[in-house]
Amino acid sequence: MNYGVVKYILGWILIAEAVFMLFPVTVGIIYGENQLWWYLLTSGICLVSGFLLCFKKPKRGGLYLKEGYFVVALGWILMSAFGAFPFVLTGEIPNYMDAFFETASGFSTTGATIITDLTVISKTTLFWRSFLHLLGGMGVFLFLSALLPMIGGNSANLMKAESTGPSIDKLVPRIKDTAFILYAMYLAMGLLEVIALLICRMPLFESLTLTFGTIGTGGFGLQNDSIASYTPAVQWVITVFMLMSGVNYNMYFLLVMRKFKSAFKMEEVRLYLIVYLVSVVLVTINIRNLYPVKDAIREAAFQCSTLITSTGYATADYDLWPEFSKSILILLMLLGACAGSTGGGIKMSRVLILFKSVRKQIQIFIHPRAIKKIKMDGNTVEHDAVRATNAYMSVFVIVFSVSVLLVSLNGFDFTTNFTAVLACLNNMGPGMNLVGPSCNYAFFSGFSKFILSFDMLAGRLELFPMLLLITPRSWRRHL
Amino acid sequence: MNYGVVKYILGWILIAEAVFMLFPVTVGIIYGENQLWWYLLTSGICLVSGFLLCFKKPKRGGLYLKEGYFVVALGWILMSAFGAFPFVLTGEIPNYMDAFFETASGFSTTGATIITDLTVISKTTLFWRSFLHLLGGMGVFLFLSALLPMIGGNSANLMKAESTGPSIDKLVPRIKDTAFILYAMYLAMGLLEVIALLICRMPLFESLTLTFGTIGTGGFGLQNDSIASYTPAVQWVITVFMLMSGVNYNMYFLLVMRKFKSAFKMEEVRLYLIVYLVSVVLVTINIRNLYPVKDAIREAAFQCSTLITSTGYATADYDLWPEFSKSILILLMLLGACAGSTGGGIKMSRVLILFKSVRKQIQIFIHPRAIKKIKMDGNTVEHDAVRATNAYMSVFVIVFSVSVLLVSLNGFDFTTNFTAVLACLNNMGPGMNLVGPSCNYAFFSGFSKFILSFDMLAGRLELFPMLLLITPRSWRRHL
Repeated sequence: MNYGVVKYILGWILIAEAVFMLFPVTVGIIYGENQLWWYLLTSGICLVSGFLLCFKKPKRGGLYLKEGYFVVALGWILMSAFGAFPFVLTGEIPNYMDAFFETASGFSTTGATIITDLTVISKTTLFWRSFLHLLGGMGVFLFLSALLPMIGGNSANLMKAESTGPSIDKLVPRIKDTAFILYAMYLAMGLLEVIALLICRMPLFESLTLTFGTIGTGGFGLQNDSIASYTPAVQWVITVFMLMSGVNYNMYFLLVMRKFKSAFKMEEVRLYLIVYLVSVVLVTINIRNLYPVKDAIREAAFQCSTLITSTGYATADYDLWPEFSKSILILLMLLGACAGSTGGGIKMSRVLILFKSVRKQIQIFIHPRAIKKIKMDGNTVEHDAVRATNAYMSVFVIVFSVSVLLVSLNGFDFTTNFTAVLACLNNMGPGMNLVGPSCNYAFFSGFSKFILSFDMLAGRLELFPMLLLITPRSWRRHL
Repeated sequence: MNYGVVKYILGWILIAEAVFMLFPVTVGIIYGENQLWWYLLTSGICLVSGFLLCFKKPKRGGLYLKEGYFVVALGWILMSAFGAFPFVLTGEIPNYMDAFFETASGFSTTGATIITDLTVISKTTLFWRSFLHLLGGMGVFLFLSALLPMIGGNSANLMKAESTGPSIDKLVPRIKDTAFILYAMYLAMGLLEVIALLICRMPLFESLTLTFGTIGTGGFGLQNDSIASYTPAVQWVITVFMLMSGVNYNMYFLLVMRKFKSAFKMEEVRLYLIVYLVSVVLVTINIRNLYPVKDAIREAAFQCSTLITSTGYATADYDLWPEFSKSILILLMLLGACAGSTGGGIKMSRVLILFKSVRKQIQIFIHPRAIKKIKMDGNTVEHDAVRATNAYMSVFVIVFSVSVLLVSLNGFDFTTNFTAVLACLNNMGPGMNLVGPSCNYAFFSGFSKFILSFDMLAGRLELFPMLLLITPRSWRRHL
């Protein structure tokens, strides 16, 4: 382990966090809220700590893959740890474990909250909460890679750790440019949504915060009933932008490059849209007796969109829907969005690889000697990617089972524990029963909150970085 | 597809079923019950149908792997379909779908029942129900392979389809002898249990039927409260024999051959016993306030044994236990027993392979260029076995999700649907909530029962045979 580089990069991450915290400070100035001073203080603490860490330039540069994973995992924990300070200092979330949970939930774009009443929270804090989604959605290390040349040189392995899905395509030869293009498209998407919401006559503050939650597929809202009290027009805008945020950004890049044929041939995106549409139709039919037809379609479209992308906004308490719809929604939570998007879950491309492996296995039974390759978008999926996908699934099941076991020590019912872990691990937000869309996570014990915070960060980084962090061998200086 | 051989073997299976049905007939004679005539009639129907099918000897012998899987899947469905007749004819289960469910549950050693009151059922029928467990436990095709030379020649691929676990070891060079040795050990285990139960002063009829349920890891009982009303001594005997039935039979073979060192070095068996012991300790601690210490240990030991082996007997309504114990029990249901045993579930050897794949993946992150092999019991696990294990897990998750979705159409709660599917797919029997150990499956709709019956048979045959059966391509005469 090259601790020099690790320290150096972590220092820069804290400096970045210090800068990011100036955004809520600005909001505090605009609305004349006193909370801003605590944010300014935390910003100072981050700045000083950051400088102390990256004061000494590392002798030896370069990051191996494992160091990339390691530093990203540590970085996300560190950012959550420092990002939680203002919540405690302002007294809005007095307990530090709760504040850490809330911050990890924000960064990991989970959107699970322990705040029972949002109406008493200051605008400064509401802004910081949602701003975390914006940072976490596309990734903080990716952001730094786009800007800082020193870190840029190491960033291929940082990007691998932070991006979603089984493999990462470089859009352009240089990593730095790839990071820049990705962020540009991400912010452009956000800008479009803000404009759309402003057209729906939503105030700027709300438009901004809700947009952060949408394009980061986070889900922190401003109202206690999430999105339910907004107009149908706003709900449709958010539905569409959530769905668009679950699409692989490679497709947008192909569209920008006018490679329409390749863009529309992406199997993963097609599967994603098919699954979404089929789910909307089935849920609409299933809930047609609960709402007028027009509302049923809107509710189904919104809830399927929020759950397949793991955003976690809600316009209806789907916990009260028929069991069949609830099962479809749990399945959508599990599947997740496309790789290379800001959404969580297992990801469509992994599902595709798994389905194709199964098909291959059946073909082997029928023709034992046939040599079959798994293909996606016309390219052969390398053996390494298949193995990584399988390992991911195994780790997913293991982490999932252990988490449910540990959370069950808290004594709540199985549906609550199961969907709480699912919602945190897949960066969803609300689950069902006691953690349903009309509830929150405040009632869990500190230990359960710790487990769920770990799940949120581990889920956002797709498990292996966190797993590497808790493997004692990977801490050794010499390997 | 060589339909000649398929028909021929299916014919023999029905003839075998005709012979098996003479056992309940004998019970009927002993107890002077009129139900015996319906069993005799069904036996006749099986005999005639069997002869019609295998009247013509196939021109071309030999079975490919896919044909082996195909014929085993069809054979199990056929046996369940015919085996259900007497339930309907005697009027003890008037509805055919219910009767099919009960028979599939028996053959697949699931032990899920739709009978609400066992005390009104005739001894003849109770015996047939439990006898199905004996047949299904070690496998009917394996039984035929041991006896019939014509089928014996094809039996390697039949055995692969019927045995449990990712790979099958031939104990001795000839398949026929392997089958014979396995059955001999299986029946010897049963004999030992009958003797032990007789020593506990249990009547012969009860000793036999409960033994069938134990060594086949089935779980059909004779009392409405399963095993709860028997003496602690009986409960301990059953606990031990259930646990022994979950051990890989290869270990017993090694013990018989006096290869003690190899026997005690089997990693799978060690993991199985460690998981069992840890679970018993944790559950005992967790339920210590509900029972006196001695009873708490016995209840924990019994319930962990019944669930890890997927037997499904119960001495306590664990649905009322604390949530942590319930989560451990659900985890045990999922894990299952050893490969090469009569138990269900994912199987310990698969769990080992998955854990080792994950470790390998982590090592690849730490040392990208290291070449690591997955080893078990000192031997390298072939790439094919790893791929098959991964494909199994994927199919498991897919079949599981689709089943929960379809069963949820029935409108019951998530815990019920989830554990019902888990209990059927892993050949467990009781689940939790509405299908808890003090309940039964009678309340489900016909459609749900159909899905669950499919899951039971698919689970017993470890998914791929059934999957092959529903793949249209595999039905083609020429491939």
